[in-house]
Amino acid sequence: MSDLLWQKPGVKVDARIQKFLAGEDVILDREFFVFDIEASRAHAQGLQQIGILAADELAGLERELSLLADDFNAGRFVLDDQYEDGHSAIEARLVERLGDAGKKIHTGRSRNDQILVATRLWLKDRLSRLLATCRESAQVALARAEAEQAVPLPGYTHLQRAVVSSLGMWWAAWAEGFVDDAQRAADTLAWVDANPLGSAAGYGVNLPLARDHTTQALGFGRMQVSAAYAQLSRGKFEMAAIEALTSALLDLRRLAWDLSLFTSAEFGFVALPSQYTTGSSIMPNKRNPDVIELMRASYSAAAAARTEIEQLLSLPSGYHRDLQFSKGAIFHAFGRGLDALELLPDLLRNLEWKTDRMREALDPSMYATDLAVDMAREGLPFREAYRLAADPARWAEGDPDASLRARVSPGASGELRLDALKERLARLPE
Amino acid sequence: MSDLLWQKPGVKVDARIQKFLAGEDVILDREFFVFDIEASRAHAQGLQQIGILAADELAGLERELSLLADDFNAGRFVLDDQYEDGHSAIEARLVERLGDAGKKIHTGRSRNDQILVATRLWLKDRLSRLLATCRESAQVALARAEAEQAVPLPGYTHLQRAVVSSLGMWWAAWAEGFVDDAQRAADTLAWVDANPLGSAAGYGVNLPLARDHTTQALGFGRMQVSAAYAQLSRGKFEMAAIEALTSALLDLRRLAWDLSLFTSAEFGFVALPSQYTTGSSIMPNKRNPDVIELMRASYSAAAAARTEIEQLLSLPSGYHRDLQFSKGAIFHAFGRGLDALELLPDLLRNLEWKTDRMREALDPSMYATDLAVDMAREGLPFREAYRLAADPARWAEGDPDASLRARVSPGASGELRLDALKERLARLPE
Amino acid sequence: MSDLLWQKPGVKVDARIQKFLAGEDVILDREFFVFDIEASRAHAQGLQQIGILAADELAGLERELSLLADDFNAGRFVLDDQYEDGHSAIEARLVERLGDAGKKIHTGRSRNDQILVATRLWLKDRLSRLLATCRESAQVALARAEAEQAVPLPGYTHLQRAVVSSLGMWWAAWAEGFVDDAQRAADTLAWVDANPLGSAAGYGVNLPLARDHTTQALGFGRMQVSAAYAQLSRGKFEMAAIEALTSALLDLRRLAWDLSLFTSAEFGFVALPSQYTTGSSIMPNKRNPDVIELMRASYSAAAAARTEIEQLLSLPSGYHRDLQFSKGAIFHAFGRGLDALELLPDLLRNLEWKTDRMREALDPSMYATDLAVDMAREGLPFREAYRLAADPARWAEGDPDASLRARVSPGASGELRLDALKERLARLPE
Amino acid sequence: MSDLLWQKPGVKVDARIQKFLAGEDVILDREFFVFDIEASRAHAQGLQQIGILAADELAGLERELSLLADDFNAGRFVLDDQYEDGHSAIEARLVERLGDAGKKIHTGRSRNDQILVATRLWLKDRLSRLLATCRESAQVALARAEAEQAVPLPGYTHLQRAVVSSLGMWWAAWAEGFVDDAQRAADTLAWVDANPLGSAAGYGVNLPLARDHTTQALGFGRMQVSAAYAQLSRGKFEMAAIEALTSALLDLRRLAWDLSLFTSAEFGFVALPSQYTTGSSIMPNKRNPDVIELMRASYSAAAAARTEIEQLLSLPSGYHRDLQFSKGAIFHAFGRGLDALELLPDLLRNLEWKTDRMREALDPSMYATDLAVDMAREGLPFREAYRLAADPARWAEGDPDASLRARVSPGASGELRLDALKERLARLPE
Repeated sequence: MSDLLWQKPGVKVDARIQKFLAGEDVILDREFFVFDIEASRAHAQGLQQIGILAADELAGLERELSLLADDFNAGRFVLDDQYEDGHSAIEARLVERLGDAGKKIHTGRSRNDQILVATRLWLKDRLSRLLATCRESAQVALARAEAEQAVPLPGYTHLQRAVVSSLGMWWAAWAEGFVDDAQRAADTLAWVDANPLGSAAGYGVNLPLARDHTTQALGFGRMQVSAAYAQLSRGKFEMAAIEALTSALLDLRRLAWDLSLFTSAEFGFVALPSQYTTGSSIMPNKRNPDVIELMRASYSAAAAARTEIEQLLSLPSGYHRDLQFSKGAIFHAFGRGLDALELLPDLLRNLEWKTDRMREALDPSMYATDLAVDMAREGLPFREAYRLAADPARWAEGDPDASLRARVSPGASGELRLDALKERLARLPE
Repeated sequence: MSDLLWQKPGVKVDARIQKFLAGEDVILDREFFVFDIEASRAHAQGLQQIGILAADELAGLERELSLLADDFNAGRFVLDDQYEDGHSAIEARLVERLGDAGKKIHTGRSRNDQILVATRLWLKDRLSRLLATCRESAQVALARAEAEQAVPLPGYTHLQRAVVSSLGMWWAAWAEGFVDDAQRAADTLAWVDANPLGSAAGYGVNLPLARDHTTQALGFGRMQVSAAYAQLSRGKFEMAAIEALTSALLDLRRLAWDLSLFTSAEFGFVALPSQYTTGSSIMPNKRNPDVIELMRASYSAAAAARTEIEQLLSLPSGYHRDLQFSKGAIFHAFGRGLDALELLPDLLRNLEWKTDRMREALDPSMYATDLAVDMAREGLPFREAYRLAADPARWAEGDPDASLRARVSPGASGELRLDALKERLARLPE
Repeated sequence: MSDLLWQKPGVKVDARIQKFLAGEDVILDREFFVFDIEASRAHAQGLQQIGILAADELAGLERELSLLADDFNAGRFVLDDQYEDGHSAIEARLVERLGDAGKKIHTGRSRNDQILVATRLWLKDRLSRLLATCRESAQVALARAEAEQAVPLPGYTHLQRAVVSSLGMWWAAWAEGFVDDAQRAADTLAWVDANPLGSAAGYGVNLPLARDHTTQALGFGRMQVSAAYAQLSRGKFEMAAIEALTSALLDLRRLAWDLSLFTSAEFGFVALPSQYTTGSSIMPNKRNPDVIELMRASYSAAAAARTEIEQLLSLPSGYHRDLQFSKGAIFHAFGRGLDALELLPDLLRNLEWKTDRMREALDPSMYATDLAVDMAREGLPFREAYRLAADPARWAEGDPDASLRARVSPGASGELRLDALKERLARLPE
Repeated sequence: MSDLLWQKPGVKVDARIQKFLAGEDVILDREFFVFDIEASRAHAQGLQQIGILAADELAGLERELSLLADDFNAGRFVLDDQYEDGHSAIEARLVERLGDAGKKIHTGRSRNDQILVATRLWLKDRLSRLLATCRESAQVALARAEAEQAVPLPGYTHLQRAVVSSLGMWWAAWAEGFVDDAQRAADTLAWVDANPLGSAAGYGVNLPLARDHTTQALGFGRMQVSAAYAQLSRGKFEMAAIEALTSALLDLRRLAWDLSLFTSAEFGFVALPSQYTTGSSIMPNKRNPDVIELMRASYSAAAAARTEIEQLLSLPSGYHRDLQFSKGAIFHAFGRGLDALELLPDLLRNLEWKTDRMREALDPSMYATDLAVDMAREGLPFREAYRLAADPARWAEGDPDASLRARVSPGASGELRLDALKERLARLPE
């Protein structure tokens, strides 16, 4: 690691300890690097506004920051363990290229608010992607609900055959689920959309930092006002973002479970395009639905990340190095979570139903509830109708299509009310 | 347990298994009981609108439901293990009092949507309380931030003395934190505010249930449209509510940590009114800040509840009995969490600062950052100013009041911007 | 609550705060009460040995402690919120009955080591039950593995049909699993088998307490030597016990998943005796395997409990009131966990296989792996044999019984090696 | 990625899906690679014993496996995303170098048991390191307990000053804690010490695999008998290993908390060698105890890993791709956990106490408990002695050294019983 910018004389250094301290920080900072550069530019602009930087110093800094971003994106600048972290890499580069102007960039700033603002911008980016992918899955599900609304599918509770259901009902469920998930992503995005830059180490500085400017320049919805709260929000905001992610992943996990069962030979309701399957190293006969299983499993990465962060947050106020470990956690959660969710719209588009197998799985018992309700509609108290309809002697092969049409309670197969879902979908923010 | 309303002949019953199945269900249902009655009334109204119930049957049901609520609230009706659960207790009572009208109440309804709607109403109630208590804590913190803004308090990072801070900064941090928490409670309340009643067992029924009516009568913001999604939201919505709660409890945990340190002899910054302390069974000299410690510990109940529910939710779609265990989890989380949070406003009002001890803990090193920034303001590149200011020979006893006034970056002691926080507080929904 | 035994004059009391502090402590202490009495007896004996109690004082204390245990067990003594907790209830009773001797019982003891020792004895009791029930499940599984070893069952990976398996293999898997779980319960029992009584508030006392005597009298395997470590082990030992429990519950969760699938109409491999099923409130046709689902769900209670405790344990050394919340957590985990596990042996005994359905689910592809290995045995490199065997044209209806007999790798259907498992089972401690 | 060894013709491939499926698998497999090679050698030996391989084929395989290990360790062979995973990399290399003998290596083996055995060997290695480092920490703590046993240290409960404690008591607590942790590592090591190689895909094979040989050759304590259970133990054994790790990390977290407080200016009991501290980017005056904070924070990585795995394990029996995600989790837990624990012995050796500050923090109230017990020893019932000793008028400056000597209950400052701990330490397995 290069000489530390703020190392003091007389301090002993132990390589093993340094390695422990550094951890994977600098590698992780690659994720944040362009956001850190973007925030550094806004900070420099602010410093110029309050007279710390001259106009030409600012111009130099802005130019060099742009070049650094270009070099990084093009792979010409590699962020590796020559540097303590991404923050010092930026400062070192600016000092190297610009001398004094570089030495001024950190005026009124701490690595504490620097990492906070970079993380915040990163979280906003990921929450936007989460919103977009949930919207897309909802759109696909809605379109297929409409197209396939009359196709019968066995309905289960407790994995036992219950009543006749339909593809319309199945798809509408996921549509509404992903609309909710998109809404939650949007709510969370608005909630974390607060600028921590300018809070320094949690106590502000004796300079009239141009925080209104940086808030606007970085596209934040509001300033995170209290310098001390900016520190307290470290981890707290990360958790909220992860929780929005888990909401979608919970739905994905249950959807993947359905598909895992439906693609088994015993259910046999779904054929999966071959690109979603893999072979076995020993069993020549196998094609396995691994993609679906990894989708199902993605929830755990997000749950793990949330556990990792919340365990850190039993601390007094102020910054503590413990908080550093929240970085890897959000990458893990969003890395794996978004990878899985962003494959979903195509998978949903490509699902092929085996409608014959679905019809074969409907049995006479599955009309018993309809029968009981029919008797209740004609005046028999439901509890008595229920007892009569429980007698298998009264069950008979039914007409699934008629059963689906007759199920007219709002939200059921005969009255799906997809328009209400389309309307909510349309109202989601971009 | 009384005869099950829907038990079939020929089924063997084993007392030990029945006990395992029943668990604490009926005890837990006490929490939901008045909400279950309220939803039953709306359901009955809907049944009358679609011709299942006659006007006088509805009148009888409404009267008996009111009486049952009164009896329950007055302790004349006890929900205990005579009943399988709260749902069957209501139905049994109505059958006993009204005969056929009672036997009709369950038409078009399942225990599945019955528990969903009762839980949903309960969650809305608890989220409202969460919103209210966070708002109140924010109000107290804001008022004290204003009143005590000029009082110096040592500022720490890594629990090491860092710079001079102020009570204004300390209080403002919690104010902004609890405004955020209140906002999140409000967002979550809106998000879960959807009526599942009328979704039956997840597949609707062959009746045009008056779901628009029940949605409006129960005060829901929208209908949860898809009958199948209503089932998928079981647990998912509970988790969102718990997560909103944990947001506030995270702040409470860190606040309690501050107070735990500040009430130690070594820090000695805070005196706790004696009602917040307890004695020791063996050490005659002790007065312990147990209230603060239990506040700190309350986070774990909510974290546990969330773990408990998320572990259940690795399931295919449709209802499964596993979901039953989500009931106890939400009581545990909100029970302990709200108890702790609702004690906070008074505790905050009653905190007594030992301002002398706070001033004594300020030492010369704590002005070094101000000094470095001062030099930077006068043109020295910050990185050089930093090196100079790192020399203890340059440190001197400072004037904490002047330091606080000079810290004029927005959100710092000299420029707290409490108005921005007041404005957000005022915009929170009732 | 009665007057506190160690309350000091001049301390204000606030009913709401007292309620918060008390929580459910006294109710929870019912679980520990007999263990607390038992440990109090040993402590009194120790005090007599070092001259704090006279022989007749000890005799009185022992008599009254026995009577109290009898009264409690018979329901004549009710531990309720008259008392702050179980510890003060015991002391209050002894003072009331015996005067000065009662006032001496707490000499050299703190509630801290009192709750530690009662919890430790309770944990040992629960771990013994865990060990016993795992052993019993292993025994049943072993017996059925032997009896049904030749019955074909489809073998799955990824829920896709893979190769022919057998009931022998299925049962042997659970047998080995529960042997491991029993072993872990035994290891954990030995690990926590250390006496904390006599550590007082974590710093010992200025008395030569007879800790060797109490260790032996209470049946502990060793003394927990360090008084300060006794406090540090609070929560840590509880977690280890819960983790031993989760090991068994993990297996139960996967076993319940198998049964949940096997009892579906689509698989149809298992018939569940009717006492293990329940009806639906709306669907007259349903019999649901709720017992299996609640068994599957029981894991979450234990996971939640572990989360609850570990979140508490981010603390400096010494006692903190936060630790109080570990009590409810262990009851929740072991209450639900043991209830589920102790129903398992009977369920396993009562499972009825539908062997026809199992044979019907075997298809020609499931012999492809055998075929590839056969070719490899005759000298074709396996990777080439694999390619040939992947061709469906080579698949044919096979003989499942021959396939099972031919699978002679140790631990497979043709060579189950049940003796090795029986031997490990026999070596488990009582 | 290179052509898959077991890919079938006609299967479509989608780059994005392939990337999702591959994840970081091949990178993660670097950790396992040498163990996978070692297990492949044992497997090849077994194949030769049952006649699948000729002696010269085995010789070739053993030679090439050694060379591959050498190349890998020397960096000449890089495991990267040319390969699907480490397993196929090994097979591809053997085929490339040896032709048919290479094509035979996978006879009777699946990637399922291949990853199981490599993971098992890795876990055993890490548990050995855990055992060793816990033992070493215990040794250091014991040595310092002995050397510094008479040095007074304030004793706290609830972070409030309680009684006089000693460095002897403080060190002995950690000594006993780490002995327990070492014991648990040893127990867990024995528990997981079972060979899964030869279980193939969970159903064995139609070959008399030489599992007794591979068990012995790989140094396993026993064979994991049931082929199906080998699959069920995936994740379950990983969790047990992580739980053993968390036991030590719980102690480390609390130890780090003590040091975090003790190095604060307010406590000021400990001076940390400068190599354990770091500077601040903005505050020139700071030296922060980051090492201690990261040690404290390391618990969360292990907790996260356990969460990640347990969330995956809600599955029917048999292999599912979900289980793949358990790999990264164990690296994360043991990577961060062992890094932290292995720095501890040196840190403990290097701690410098500020004994003056420790004595200054003793105040008269801290002798009140001694006083009450003294009165009890002379015959006053303890509960009365307690009331008298609660009167501050009776408190006086005490002699801490005398107090420590008088605290003779076993495990307290006057009777530490370090020999008992040394004995347990000596009995730990190597």
